[in-house]
Amino acid sequence: MTKQKRSSLQQKLYTVIFEAETPAGKAFDILLLVLIMLSVLVVSLESVRSLTAKYYDVFYFAEWVFTAIFTVEYLLRLYCTPKSVRYAFSFFGIVDLLAIIPAYLSLFILGSQYLLVIRVLRLLRAARIFKLTRFINAGQTLSTAIRGSLTKIGVFLGVVLTLVVIIGSLMYIIEGAEHGFTSIPTSIYWAIVTLTTVGYGDISPVTPLGQILASFVMIMGYGIIAVPTGIVSVELANADKAAMNTRVCPNCHKEGHEIDASYCNNCGYPLNGEAEG
Amino acid sequence: MTKQKRSSLQQKLYTVIFEAETPAGKAFDILLLVLIMLSVLVVSLESVRSLTAKYYDVFYFAEWVFTAIFTVEYLLRLYCTPKSVRYAFSFFGIVDLLAIIPAYLSLFILGSQYLLVIRVLRLLRAARIFKLTRFINAGQTLSTAIRGSLTKIGVFLGVVLTLVVIIGSLMYIIEGAEHGFTSIPTSIYWAIVTLTTVGYGDISPVTPLGQILASFVMIMGYGIIAVPTGIVSVELANADKAAMNTRVCPNCHKEGHEIDASYCNNCGYPLNGEAEG
Amino acid sequence: MTKQKRSSLQQKLYTVIFEAETPAGKAFDILLLVLIMLSVLVVSLESVRSLTAKYYDVFYFAEWVFTAIFTVEYLLRLYCTPKSVRYAFSFFGIVDLLAIIPAYLSLFILGSQYLLVIRVLRLLRAARIFKLTRFINAGQTLSTAIRGSLTKIGVFLGVVLTLVVIIGSLMYIIEGAEHGFTSIPTSIYWAIVTLTTVGYGDISPVTPLGQILASFVMIMGYGIIAVPTGIVSVELANADKAAMNTRVCPNCHKEGHEIDASYCNNCGYPLNGEAEG
Amino acid sequence: MTKQKRSSLQQKLYTVIFEAETPAGKAFDILLLVLIMLSVLVVSLESVRSLTAKYYDVFYFAEWVFTAIFTVEYLLRLYCTPKSVRYAFSFFGIVDLLAIIPAYLSLFILGSQYLLVIRVLRLLRAARIFKLTRFINAGQTLSTAIRGSLTKIGVFLGVVLTLVVIIGSLMYIIEGAEHGFTSIPTSIYWAIVTLTTVGYGDISPVTPLGQILASFVMIMGYGIIAVPTGIVSVELANADKAAMNTRVCPNCHKEGHEIDASYCNNCGYPLNGEAEG
Repeated sequence: MTKQKRSSLQQKLYTVIFEAETPAGKAFDILLLVLIMLSVLVVSLESVRSLTAKYYDVFYFAEWVFTAIFTVEYLLRLYCTPKSVRYAFSFFGIVDLLAIIPAYLSLFILGSQYLLVIRVLRLLRAARIFKLTRFINAGQTLSTAIRGSLTKIGVFLGVVLTLVVIIGSLMYIIEGAEHGFTSIPTSIYWAIVTLTTVGYGDISPVTPLGQILASFVMIMGYGIIAVPTGIVSVELANADKAAMNTRVCPNCHKEGHEIDASYCNNCGYPLNGEAEG
Repeated sequence: MTKQKRSSLQQKLYTVIFEAETPAGKAFDILLLVLIMLSVLVVSLESVRSLTAKYYDVFYFAEWVFTAIFTVEYLLRLYCTPKSVRYAFSFFGIVDLLAIIPAYLSLFILGSQYLLVIRVLRLLRAARIFKLTRFINAGQTLSTAIRGSLTKIGVFLGVVLTLVVIIGSLMYIIEGAEHGFTSIPTSIYWAIVTLTTVGYGDISPVTPLGQILASFVMIMGYGIIAVPTGIVSVELANADKAAMNTRVCPNCHKEGHEIDASYCNNCGYPLNGEAEG
Repeated sequence: MTKQKRSSLQQKLYTVIFEAETPAGKAFDILLLVLIMLSVLVVSLESVRSLTAKYYDVFYFAEWVFTAIFTVEYLLRLYCTPKSVRYAFSFFGIVDLLAIIPAYLSLFILGSQYLLVIRVLRLLRAARIFKLTRFINAGQTLSTAIRGSLTKIGVFLGVVLTLVVIIGSLMYIIEGAEHGFTSIPTSIYWAIVTLTTVGYGDISPVTPLGQILASFVMIMGYGIIAVPTGIVSVELANADKAAMNTRVCPNCHKEGHEIDASYCNNCGYPLNGEAEG
Repeated sequence: MTKQKRSSLQQKLYTVIFEAETPAGKAFDILLLVLIMLSVLVVSLESVRSLTAKYYDVFYFAEWVFTAIFTVEYLLRLYCTPKSVRYAFSFFGIVDLLAIIPAYLSLFILGSQYLLVIRVLRLLRAARIFKLTRFINAGQTLSTAIRGSLTKIGVFLGVVLTLVVIIGSLMYIIEGAEHGFTSIPTSIYWAIVTLTTVGYGDISPVTPLGQILASFVMIMGYGIIAVPTGIVSVELANADKAAMNTRVCPNCHKEGHEIDASYCNNCGYPLNGEAEG
């Protein structure tokens, strides 16, 4: 935590805890992943009344074991990283802290109602799973495509939200409170349930006019669902091509060679210089 | 509103109200957007009985403040635009008027039933939001793609509607009024609910034969939902390509040539001058 | 109907009834379309009990007027076509006949139950609407794409049906008759309702194990719905390209020129010979 | 089963049972397919109580006839294949055995409850249907595309599962046990039902805050469903292209060169011989 020269212990711990290239680092990451999943499982099962009645002690003990492990882990992370302040305020630093604080808070703040709110925050630990997948190329292609389509999806969502407000208000007037459409916000909720083709059926139109409008909304939703799909498809295809088309032949300057190509398919010149020629 | 020379006040107001290039114009548009959203929110919350019971006065006051602001805005628009008649009969001119009329009408026409019908029209104000997004390129690509796929989606919807009428009638005969399929229109409504995969469950088949037919309809809907998605995907890809291929022929000025084209495909003129001619 | 020389009346009628190029032919087709839609509407509304109680006479009269018109139309078609036998046994010939027969049958076969079965067949008239759309290019591109993807969708449906049988049986064992999964066919019906994301909710899992299996099925369905969409998208893109890529340059033999291209974009040679050179 | 020279009977049987090229082999495969489907149908109908009450004897007899046929078939397969041990432990060898064992087990292990578990395993016979479709190219293109997109879909499912755990926990706190969200696992089940747009409606939010969160989840699900569809579309397009580009290098035999490639991109050898070299 000081700016002194880092000890060899810090170096070793850093390699194991923060990196995943060495066998020890990999084993640590997988172990951590399993522990996080188990702790999420315990929190989830604790909320099942029939189980808590029987195994309250087991859950309580397991919870504190997990909290102890994650606390030690958090302190070690702070100790071994060369930039401990930057880590503490990074996204994963905050998540790591939030994953242990609620357990300690539960000692002081009593009452099941509040306790529950606290427990759920621990589930954010699951976000740490992503650390393991960051090396996967696929994740990058996906996020490139999704980022590339955000503007279009934003415009699209604006149109959808406007539609949903107008449709919801119309349905409120047509069906009214006696058929479950108790207010405009509730009717907008119904419009979202319908347009996204979820269709709970907790509220559904009863009058002929309401059913006709609902039919239009559903068929519209049918067409509308095509838009984000189309956007993402096109962006994914672009991201795929972009990953491929960055190699240029040094002889004829043709672009877009396959990733594993050794020779230019236009002039036969070796693509990687003398290395493979 | 007269055809006289426009005053400098009119010029200034026009820049602020109708344009969004100057800082003042941008601020005005964003302020207006927030006001519209707030007024829509107030109209929505007014329909929630428990809230109206408590805050009726607040809602009533807020409603009239918004109405006053939008009325002044409408009059200023009419005053500062050089073509006030054309504005008054344009789409947004009519929407702007419809956004204030219902409030004044509510003074003369009493009765909550009618009042509600009037209030909802104000929600069309939300359409003014689009003014802010018109400069977004994404919106244009989207609308190009959607316009390009309208014919195909029209043919597709025709097929779907025919299917829905036949399926609805068959289900009416198979299930009958005692299982909720009270008439052919209701059964058609059920067919739409099922084919679009909304599935409220307010009406659902009970007899084995009805469930078999419903299974066919659902699997059909599974395949059918692919068609509009495919159409929009292809059109979006085309719109994307068209936006990229902005090469113009120096001779006939035709746009949109392929990236590797050497000659204009409209007049045969070499596209890259003497370099390749 | 005989093989004699056709009279000028037959010629004229044929142009009006079977073709849509002349103004009279077009007007006839549109009138017919409106009449078919009205007759389908009358049949639909007739099934609504509250309406039939009031307007039985109106419906009865309208039904016979439509039947009379369509009968005359059918006889005229038989009279004016040069190949009346081929027409009578063509798809639309049979549909035209089926559209009038049920009305006459209803005179002899009494009983509302049977009458209804007969009425619904008339809805097949709606298929005649397609005659108007056959000239639309979009319909052809769509049907090419759908036909091109039928094999893949067939394989896909085979996999889905196998999945649905296995999932349905597992749910029958897990949930059992007391939770609504009364038999394997019913459970298969549930599996289809779930996998297609329709989700009526008339049958839904109650036991934890059932809900876990259902969760897997839903997430599977999420991924599976992507397959037909992907298939149709690719085929539509191919159909689009195929419509474009059938022009070859007579000079350099480059393929894939745009439909409205006049000159080869590779060598500048006029594409349509001396016509435009 | 021995390693002796195979008799001509074995040869003949092998051609009929294992291959589908000869008319007899094809007839055998189709007959088998029909028998499997019928046996699955009988098992399914047996679970319908009203039918079992009437036709118990018929079902019982049919079941044993199918079991006898499949037993003889299994023994013949073992007899005629040159590598009987490898067959017995192959996927289809095990499925073929599992398809007959339950029937014999039902003689010793009594009790309808267990009997049902056993019966359902027979449904795996349906997997044998795939043998008939393996020659279909479409199946291969599909499986190539699905395999190619597995990594991306894996990353995507990880994100979805994390989302579902967090959303489920939030809803448990917001709505609570009195509105049907009895525990975190149940709430996660609800989140999956909603995000996949299935929407049973057995559990649905009642409080305004719950409905607002649910609205966000549904709109999110609307965008999220686009991702797997986009992934599969792109992979299918790639698989399609790969199937088309079957050019092989005459020097190093690498397949899948681009249509306009002049040189092998693996070894630099000219692809079209002296024509372009």
